[in-house]
Amino acid sequence: MSVALHGYFRSSAAWRVRIALRLKGLAFENVFHHLRRNEQNAADYLAINPQGLLPTLDLGGGKILTQSLAICEYLDAMYPEPPLLPAEPFECAKVRAFAQAIACDIHPVQNLKILNRLREHGFAEAAVNAWAKVTIDEGLNACAALLEAAPAGDFCFGNQPTLADVFLLPQLGSARRFAVDLRWPRMLEIEERCMQMPAFRAAIPALQPDAE
Amino acid sequence: MSVALHGYFRSSAAWRVRIALRLKGLAFENVFHHLRRNEQNAADYLAINPQGLLPTLDLGGGKILTQSLAICEYLDAMYPEPPLLPAEPFECAKVRAFAQAIACDIHPVQNLKILNRLREHGFAEAAVNAWAKVTIDEGLNACAALLEAAPAGDFCFGNQPTLADVFLLPQLGSARRFAVDLRWPRMLEIEERCMQMPAFRAAIPALQPDAE
Repeated sequence: MSVALHGYFRSSAAWRVRIALRLKGLAFENVFHHLRRNEQNAADYLAINPQGLLPTLDLGGGKILTQSLAICEYLDAMYPEPPLLPAEPFECAKVRAFAQAIACDIHPVQNLKILNRLREHGFAEAAVNAWAKVTIDEGLNACAALLEAAPAGDFCFGNQPTLADVFLLPQLGSARRFAVDLRWPRMLEIEERCMQMPAFRAAIPALQPDAE
Repeated sequence: MSVALHGYFRSSAAWRVRIALRLKGLAFENVFHHLRRNEQNAADYLAINPQGLLPTLDLGGGKILTQSLAICEYLDAMYPEPPLLPAEPFECAKVRAFAQAIACDIHPVQNLKILNRLREHGFAEAAVNAWAKVTIDEGLNACAALLEAAPAGDFCFGNQPTLADVFLLPQLGSARRFAVDLRWPRMLEIEERCMQMPAFRAAIPALQPDAE
């Protein structure tokens, strides 16, 4: 299988898939699309991802997947070790809900596409940054409450990384870009523990070949 | 099992869970939270849903789930008939990606919370409505392209409803509220077919006890 990940070093959603691919030990090639140059809206990219969003995972043989969460769950189904979701349905739903609190309610409200739309509506840069900051702040504060209700463990849900951690780490990266006060000690402890793992370390934006 | 759905007649995310519960033939009670009166931010609701968002599913015995997609997938795991996701991982990922194109990239960018934030930033009502309309229009247009790539069938993916249909129907409802030009015939055919099923019909906002 020759796998290609369509991404961008700073794309938080592509970052998630980079972590998942590495946790599963899967080799992949990178295809970069420069978001600030609007390359994600080129016709040849829209042909494989009609949303014009990153990431897309090209599995070869015409098999193409979009949406980072769907991609990560596919990888987890196809390559079960190490598992990224608990087998027990209720525990699994808790992990998914945490990942979705980020994937649905934080990231899409503060991604480049939306911030650019605010600029088109006349938002000054300070107001754009404030929008992103409050979105991430409120969202992560709710995530912190979800973590408080989770059983104690080294990672978000238990003693192994799950999709909750895979989604949390890139969101913490975005939080720093927008100067959010990271006032949630448990999240920072989890981040530190993740960053001791090569899969998480190698996936950070600064280490990607297209990093600027 | 005594199940309670915390919702609101007009909440698109609660609507999805209403459909899923009914497709599975599960009885449930309604607990209503009036979004325009900000009841979702009451302390007792935040205690079970720290995001202050609808829906929440209370399964009884202290088992509480948030996030509509996680809830629907939980129901599908616990009550496998009729299945709402294909068993084959790649096909399953396609259905999830479609649902997530709505759950991540359309709905959270045009829900009441974000529209209210735009109002706080001085958007006039016409600009607020235009924001919602363009978000839904662009998003559904991408969804239409995803459907074109799907195999022909009575529903979004195949001849039985999946989570793709469960997420599409409420989004079409929001599209109408914001006067989006529904220029995608296949979506409307699918909607009509869904509306012939009691589970979809009974879940529409106008038929909920809290409808205004």
